[in-house]
Amino acid sequence: MSLLSETVVAVRPACQRAVEEADARQARLTKPPGAMGQLEDLGAQLAGIARTCPPPVPSRPAVAVFAGDHGVHAQGVTPWPQEVTAQMVANFAAGGAVVNALARQVGASVTVVDVGVAADLPDAPNLWHRKVARGTRDLAEGPAMTREQAQQALETGIAVAGELVDGGADLLVTGDMGIANTTASAALIAALTRSEPAEVTGRGTGIDDATLQRKTAVVERALNRLDRSEPLTVLAEVGGFEHAALAGFLLGSAARRVPVVLDGVIAVSAALVASALCPDAADYWVAGHVSVEPGARAALDHLGMEPLLDLHLRLGEGSGAVLAVPLVQSAARLLSEVATFDSAGVSGA
Amino acid sequence: MSLLSETVVAVRPACQRAVEEADARQARLTKPPGAMGQLEDLGAQLAGIARTCPPPVPSRPAVAVFAGDHGVHAQGVTPWPQEVTAQMVANFAAGGAVVNALARQVGASVTVVDVGVAADLPDAPNLWHRKVARGTRDLAEGPAMTREQAQQALETGIAVAGELVDGGADLLVTGDMGIANTTASAALIAALTRSEPAEVTGRGTGIDDATLQRKTAVVERALNRLDRSEPLTVLAEVGGFEHAALAGFLLGSAARRVPVVLDGVIAVSAALVASALCPDAADYWVAGHVSVEPGARAALDHLGMEPLLDLHLRLGEGSGAVLAVPLVQSAARLLSEVATFDSAGVSGA
Repeated sequence: MSLLSETVVAVRPACQRAVEEADARQARLTKPPGAMGQLEDLGAQLAGIARTCPPPVPSRPAVAVFAGDHGVHAQGVTPWPQEVTAQMVANFAAGGAVVNALARQVGASVTVVDVGVAADLPDAPNLWHRKVARGTRDLAEGPAMTREQAQQALETGIAVAGELVDGGADLLVTGDMGIANTTASAALIAALTRSEPAEVTGRGTGIDDATLQRKTAVVERALNRLDRSEPLTVLAEVGGFEHAALAGFLLGSAARRVPVVLDGVIAVSAALVASALCPDAADYWVAGHVSVEPGARAALDHLGMEPLLDLHLRLGEGSGAVLAVPLVQSAARLLSEVATFDSAGVSGA
Repeated sequence: MSLLSETVVAVRPACQRAVEEADARQARLTKPPGAMGQLEDLGAQLAGIARTCPPPVPSRPAVAVFAGDHGVHAQGVTPWPQEVTAQMVANFAAGGAVVNALARQVGASVTVVDVGVAADLPDAPNLWHRKVARGTRDLAEGPAMTREQAQQALETGIAVAGELVDGGADLLVTGDMGIANTTASAALIAALTRSEPAEVTGRGTGIDDATLQRKTAVVERALNRLDRSEPLTVLAEVGGFEHAALAGFLLGSAARRVPVVLDGVIAVSAALVASALCPDAADYWVAGHVSVEPGARAALDHLGMEPLLDLHLRLGEGSGAVLAVPLVQSAARLLSEVATFDSAGVSGA
């Protein structure tokens, strides 16, 4: 059995009994019922994941930034040169990127995983070399990856989740880097939510109208040839190596029963793939934020997930997910540390 | 000259040159222009407050929870007994409330300030006794406070901000406790934003339809007798001691040039008073979140402030503001720690 099949089989739904215990406990804490809004739902989810209430407060968050290049870059879907992917990997490795600064704020580690950068990358302590190929093929012209490549990238993501958990991580965070990767995300989201390409294709890093038209046309062309019935085929046809690895990372986290915070449009498009492969895995995912990229909201709605933050971010790298880490920790902490009406001698309504 | 007048005179607008330096710096950091959305505006605001770019990353946040009781409780505007205010003060002092758990998560101190609780409170290390009176009078029947009481509570808030800053705090956070205090907030917001009482009066801790009708009628009655032209009069007529102290706290923070994170509807109603007394002070305020209480959005819109979080919270205590503290720290950190395109050797678009 492949690592992918083994992982899907290993995923169990979250524990409903612990979710109910958390809900019951929230009602006894010294606050009006429901007053902590979304954090109460999140606390219950964390209890379900941990299969106990109160759930432990995560203290060792770990970000994995999956990096890859995209053949569709040749279609002129972005003004950024492709070499920026490799340059940003060097920036991550040196600790100089936005995600590094945000990770230092919340005490998270940052691991960069090359799953498909179109350049040879020098060694660095926090850079893992797991290249499947030097960039995908152009999804506008034909399949971006072979099915074997897609599965290899998925299994790489599964393995990375496992290695980070084995290293002590108790909260995983998705990150991504890849010039042109919002084009692949838009195609995945259109295919898997059955949306119109024009509704879910956005400006990415901030492209102009002409580029957006070109990008939307590329997504339409790819969708027209696509058989949407099989998620692994959709992933191979229009995804990227980082999308595939992220989908695996999300499955791997669920199999290891560790919560994982999703970043923006790249992460949620990968989540659509992972959810199609294994619906129960979604019990382990938390939407860190909603990107301004229109496909992000479409994907979250399809997944039935409510994001924690909406700060008009459109960076990727894991930036929005890292910002949400203290909210996840806070949701767990409320269940373990807040006094009950009885214990604090506070009268009820 | 009174402490209030001295404080208003001491407030200077934020430094526009530092704001512009921050905007220019954001454009050189290794990310697409504007990609960090609201955090870029916040970073620029922090630079303007610090009068230098990059601004320092706040590392000693301090929450002040102002507590008071309300004569309008007699009108049956809430099912919670009045003694819950004093019981919750004891809970804060013991570290068992939601705000305490959240403050521990972000490394913030919590100071509870009795400005008007209708009970004698035992000593506790983090409880400051600054009682103006044992609760306000009933705002439905006449002025809640005398002008002298309102000014005394304002000046208490100013003094608390100064004492916390003298003690090393570099980021202040508003908190509040007072059974029935959303009634006073609704009246302040209706008066100062010129909204209809029914639009800005909400369910507070979660009251039923009949109680909401009673509460709205109370606010209408108070508004009908009110001369809205003078903010200190409005505050005295329909505010609470914690509202007055919070208004002072916001002025004091601005005078000391320390950013302050606003919590929910109690804080933003106090901010309307403070802004009416000293418009420049608003340069120093950050909206931590938007409460589900309808007046919160009305007040933020009137102040032209965009909240950082919208988690459907309706607790108060400072809970939403404390949750936003890492976002404030992150916004400052980006300006000091993220590499520029030049320094990292990353190509531009």
